[in-house]
Amino acid sequence: MRSFSWTIRVYHEDTDSGGVVYYANYLKFMERARTEWLRSKGCEQDALLRRERLLFVVCGATLDYRWPARFNDLLTVTTRVITMRRASIRFDQQVMGAAATTARVLCAADIKVACVDADTWRPKAIPASLLMEMQGGS
Amino acid sequence: MRSFSWTIRVYHEDTDSGGVVYYANYLKFMERARTEWLRSKGCEQDALLRRERLLFVVCGATLDYRWPARFNDLLTVTTRVITMRRASIRFDQQVMGAAATTARVLCAADIKVACVDADTWRPKAIPASLLMEMQGGS
Amino acid sequence: MRSFSWTIRVYHEDTDSGGVVYYANYLKFMERARTEWLRSKGCEQDALLRRERLLFVVCGATLDYRWPARFNDLLTVTTRVITMRRASIRFDQQVMGAAATTARVLCAADIKVACVDADTWRPKAIPASLLMEMQGGS
Amino acid sequence: MRSFSWTIRVYHEDTDSGGVVYYANYLKFMERARTEWLRSKGCEQDALLRRERLLFVVCGATLDYRWPARFNDLLTVTTRVITMRRASIRFDQQVMGAAATTARVLCAADIKVACVDADTWRPKAIPASLLMEMQGGS
Repeated sequence: MRSFSWTIRVYHEDTDSGGVVYYANYLKFMERARTEWLRSKGCEQDALLRRERLLFVVCGATLDYRWPARFNDLLTVTTRVITMRRASIRFDQQVMGAAATTARVLCAADIKVACVDADTWRPKAIPASLLMEMQGGS
Repeated sequence: MRSFSWTIRVYHEDTDSGGVVYYANYLKFMERARTEWLRSKGCEQDALLRRERLLFVVCGATLDYRWPARFNDLLTVTTRVITMRRASIRFDQQVMGAAATTARVLCAADIKVACVDADTWRPKAIPASLLMEMQGGS
Repeated sequence: MRSFSWTIRVYHEDTDSGGVVYYANYLKFMERARTEWLRSKGCEQDALLRRERLLFVVCGATLDYRWPARFNDLLTVTTRVITMRRASIRFDQQVMGAAATTARVLCAADIKVACVDADTWRPKAIPASLLMEMQGGS
Repeated sequence: MRSFSWTIRVYHEDTDSGGVVYYANYLKFMERARTEWLRSKGCEQDALLRRERLLFVVCGATLDYRWPARFNDLLTVTTRVITMRRASIRFDQQVMGAAATTARVLCAADIKVACVDADTWRPKAIPASLLMEMQGGS
């Protein structure tokens, strides 16, 4: 499948006293990108929760930190579906510099997201219409 | 009223690339201290929500940032009630170095907290038993 | 002076278990908006630090929390200079819903920023060229 | 090697509107625990940076999210060294409920930390005395 791109600016809130983006914050950037990918598929997660009591939750993540991002950097986060199942999706996500001259991969991740019932926290099937939207490319 | 003290360690997550604690994070430290003050009065906020649908929410804050805290600093947060009303409490809170040699005030705040109904977000009276506990000093 | 507007999306990272934006995070939103206002004036803060060892730091903040923002909300943060001095700027900032139907003020703030030397943390004059840019409106 | 335990309280700042601890924040909890483990070995990271220009940075992380932690939970984070090399350490870390009745694993992680030069960001040997301290058990 094609890859979805989302641009993120690094602000002071994202950095730490080592002078770089704090390592947990790449997970924030990646979640923003997945949220925008879902939105591009017509899925607003607040409506999904209200109407179907469904939440997408991360159940596994593998992160490879290669180079640090710094304050004021403009980053691109790419999001690509690797596999899609009835109640889970596996993503390949990469954070890189947004400019041609800075476009090396800073952090690469393999993220597994489950669709769960908001009340029981048990796996629940992704709605068929959304699943079809998702499989329609990028 | 007497003042309640809570000790907090500064970790990397709390700092920014300026080399100091990020300014929004003092509000986190102060909320931890208010939470522990409430606990010292016998109030567990998860039980309060479950049993009475009550939340304490901040409705106003004035912050005076005097000196920066840094990575690995050990801080003391003091919490003192200024006024207590039926559905709101005003606190004087100070963040300072925890050691005698570092005990100057780094950040001082005036925080106003309201007790609200978790569903309507409207002011609701603090339960009488808790109010009495709170007025019992420190 | 005119007001500068910046749009911000609320993600899961910004909310808390009360179902609303965590109170400290409005300070993050406001700093993003001030950073973008500075950028619109030609000021890149990483260059300012590298070339002149200058940092803008918040030395005072007063926040008035009126209504909660929620997950997935699209917000507008407005930034308006109230007073500008040799080494400090006072801002009026407001966070509100971004759509016409949601455009009430959720959080209003009075923020005082000082320009300091990054090494001594002492006040230092804002560079004249930047000061002139800033006074040029919006 | 033996395991080092550190207790952490979940505050509102750690949760999200799904009602649980936000997934990136487990990385914060684990870093607090590694920091305290280092301190228990006599290593204060601010001194290490000042005296030797050394930083510990995470270069890889694998996280397995099993059950959500919630507001007000008291958690135990365990930290155990799997392998220790000249310039890197691999940790097994687990976040679990702190009470006997809640002591199931909520999040398990494999974290790889590199020791780097703070200026060049290149791998640099962990000081011999610290390495010896670290190998002396838990």
